[in-house]
Amino acid sequence: MTSQTAETAEISAPAEGADGTKPALSFLGLGALGTAFARAWLAAGYPLTVWNRTAARAEPLAAEGARVARTAAEAVAAADLVVVCLLDDASVGDVLADADLAGKDLVNLTTGTPAQGRARAEWAAARGARFLDGGVMAVPPMVGDPDSGGYVFYSGSRDLFEAHARTLAVPAGTKYVGTDAGHAALHDVALLSAMNGMFAGVAHAFALVRKEDIAPREFAGLLAGWLNAMAPFVHRVAEQLELGDYTEGVVSNLAMQVAGNATLLRTAEEQGVSSELLAPYMELMERRLADGHGDEDGTGVIDLLAR
Amino acid sequence: MTSQTAETAEISAPAEGADGTKPALSFLGLGALGTAFARAWLAAGYPLTVWNRTAARAEPLAAEGARVARTAAEAVAAADLVVVCLLDDASVGDVLADADLAGKDLVNLTTGTPAQGRARAEWAAARGARFLDGGVMAVPPMVGDPDSGGYVFYSGSRDLFEAHARTLAVPAGTKYVGTDAGHAALHDVALLSAMNGMFAGVAHAFALVRKEDIAPREFAGLLAGWLNAMAPFVHRVAEQLELGDYTEGVVSNLAMQVAGNATLLRTAEEQGVSSELLAPYMELMERRLADGHGDEDGTGVIDLLAR
Ligand SMILES: NC(=O)c1ccc[n+]([C@@H]2O[C@H](COP(=O)([O-])OP(=O)(O)OC[C@H]3O[C@@H](n4cnc5c(N)ncnc54)[C@H](OP(=O)(O)O)[C@@H]3O)[C@@H](O)[C@H]2O)c1
Ligand SMILES: NC(=O)c1ccc[n+]([C@@H]2O[C@H](COP(=O)([O-])OP(=O)(O)OC[C@H]3O[C@@H](n4cnc5c(N)ncnc54)[C@H](OP(=O)(O)O)[C@@H]3O)[C@@H](O)[C@H]2O)c1
Repeated sequence: MTSQTAETAEISAPAEGADGTKPALSFLGLGALGTAFARAWLAAGYPLTVWNRTAARAEPLAAEGARVARTAAEAVAAADLVVVCLLDDASVGDVLADADLAGKDLVNLTTGTPAQGRARAEWAAARGARFLDGGVMAVPPMVGDPDSGGYVFYSGSRDLFEAHARTLAVPAGTKYVGTDAGHAALHDVALLSAMNGMFAGVAHAFALVRKEDIAPREFAGLLAGWLNAMAPFVHRVAEQLELGDYTEGVVSNLAMQVAGNATLLRTAEEQGVSSELLAPYMELMERRLADGHGDEDGTGVIDLLAR
Repeated sequence: MTSQTAETAEISAPAEGADGTKPALSFLGLGALGTAFARAWLAAGYPLTVWNRTAARAEPLAAEGARVARTAAEAVAAADLVVVCLLDDASVGDVLADADLAGKDLVNLTTGTPAQGRARAEWAAARGARFLDGGVMAVPPMVGDPDSGGYVFYSGSRDLFEAHARTLAVPAGTKYVGTDAGHAALHDVALLSAMNGMFAGVAHAFALVRKEDIAPREFAGLLAGWLNAMAPFVHRVAEQLELGDYTEGVVSNLAMQVAGNATLLRTAEEQGVSSELLAPYMELMERRLADGHGDEDGTGVIDLLAR
C-alpha cells in the first residue's frame, strides 16, 4: 500500500502546535467547493496562494487577500502544504503534471473512487510527496461553518494528517479513516450511495401521497421523524455482520418483511405509482428468503450484492 | 367518503375524560402485535375481553386478568369499543362476519392498503359502526413503552378518535391523519416504502466496505450520522412540491448529482458490488436531466413515478 511509503516520508512542514502557527498554503482549483475551502483558510488568517485554470475565478479571493499564482507549478512551489480541489482525478494529473512535488504535502479534495485515491497516492509518492486523499461530506455553503455538521474523510499519510490536523480542521470537521489512501473515497461513496437509496425511498413516498389531500410539509415532518427513528437500525446490521449471525436481535424477520412487501406493492398500484424504486430490494429479500433464510434480518441481502 | 357517514354516527361510548374513566374494551386477534396491544390496555387497568381463533394464544392474557370470549361475535358484544388486529384485511371480514356491529366503535389495527381501509370503513358504516383505521408504526417490543417512539396513524371517524383519544394513547402514541379512512394506511405504507429505500441504500453501503479492513460498527456510526444529517432534506422536497418549483433552494443541482453518479457506479464496480439497488433511481435522475431539468433538485423524479 502506497500510504505506507507516504507515512515514512520526511516531515517537510512544521507541525502546527497550540501556539497558533499558521503555515502557508497553496490551493489549486477554485470551483464552487474549492473557493469555499480556500476562503475559509483565508478568513482564518492562513497565508494563501491560489491558482485556477480560468484566472477570473481567482479574482474574488485575490480581493480578499490571497496571492494569485500564474501557473499551477508556481502555486505548488509557493508552499509546503498544497491542496487541490478539481473536477475529477484526471484533472489532478493534468494540473500537477509539471509541478515539482518533492518534499510537498499534497491534500486532494477532488472526488474520486477508492482505486483512484490509491493510484494517486502511489503517483504522489513516486514524486516525493506525502499524500492525503479527502472525501468531502459537505456542500459549499457548509464549508467554513463549524455548526453545519459538514466534514471531510481523510485517508493516506497519517503523518501528514497529524502534522496538519489543526489546519485541516479549519474549513470543516475531519475524520481520518486510515492509511489506505482509498478509504476516504470509499467512505464518501458508501455514504452517498446509502443516501441515494434514502432519497429514492423518499421520492416513492412523496409520489404515493401526492394526489391526496395531504400537505407535503406535514408529511415531510412525519417522514423525517421516521427515517431518523429507523437509521439506528444500521447498528444492528453492523453487529450482525461482525457476529456473522444475521438472526441476532431480529424483531421482524425476513419472512415477515417479505409478506409485508405485498402491501407496499399493492398500495403503489392503487396510487398509480411505479414500483421501480421499490422492486430491486424486494427481489433480493425474496431471493434470500427462497434460499432458506426466513428467520434472519434483511442483512443477508448484503451477501447477495457481492459478485 | 364513508368516513363522513361514520363521523355523523351517534356517539355510543362515553368519552373518556380527565376523570380516568376506563371503558371496557374487546380485542380480537392475539398474534405478536395484537397481544402487545391487548396487554398494554390490560396492564393499564382497562376491563378487557379477548378472542383469538387459536384459543391457546389467549391463555397468557387470561392469566393476567382478561376475560376470554368463546366466539368473535361474543367478544364484539362484550364492549362498545372493539379493536381488531388480524393478519390481513380478508381475515377482518372473516372474523367479524357474524358479529353485530350496530352502535359499535370499531378500530382496525390490521395492516392494509388505503383502498382496503376505505372499503372497510364503508363496510363498517353499512353495519352501523363508527370506524377508525390504524397503521401501526411500531414492532411488538415498542408497544406499551412510552419512550419507544412507536405510534399509530389513525384515520376515519374523527368522533370515534376524539371519544377514545385517551384510551387509544395507552399502548402507543397516536397521530390522527384525517377523515379519509385510507389515509392511515397510506401514511403507514409511504413511511415503510421510504424505509425500504433507506435500507436498500444501507445494504449497498455495507456491501461496498465489507471486504475492506473497516470495522462495521465504526462504519455504522458514520452511516447513521450521515443519514440523520440528510433526512431533513425531505423538508426541501416538500417545499418544492408545494411551490411547484423544483429549483427552490437547490444546492447541488440535478446535473451535478448525475455527474456524481458515475463515481458511485465506478466504485461499486471496483468493489465487486452489484449496482442493482443504485441504478433505478439514477436512471430516473438521468431521464429528468435529459428532459431539460438540470437546474432542478432531484424532486422531479417524483413526477416520473406517476403512471
Ligand atoms: N460542489 C459540491 O457540492 C461538492 C461536494 C462534495 C464534493 N465535490 C467535489 O469537489 C470537486 C470540485 O467540485 P466543485 O463543485 O468545486 O466543481 P466546479 O465548480 O465544477 O469546479 C471544477 C474545478 O475544476 C477545474 N478543472 C476542471 N477540469 C480541469 C482541468 N482539466 N484542468 C484544470 N482545472 C480543471 C475547474 O477550473 P475552471 O474554473 O477553469 O473550469 C474548476 O476550478 C469535484 O470533484 C466534486 O465532485 C463537490
Ligand atoms: N408484528 C409486527 O411487527 C407488526 C408491525 C406493524 C404492523 N403489523 C401488522 O399487524 C397485524 C398483526 O400482526 P401480528 O404480528 O400480530 O401477526 P401474527 O403474529 O401473524 O398474528 C396474526 C393474527 O391473525 C389471526 N388470523 C389470521 N388469519 C385469520 C383468520 N382467517 N381468521 C381469524 N384469525 C386469523 C391469527 O390467529 P391464529 O393465532 O389463530 O393464527 C393471529 O391472531 C398484521 O396486519 C401485521 O401486518 C405487525
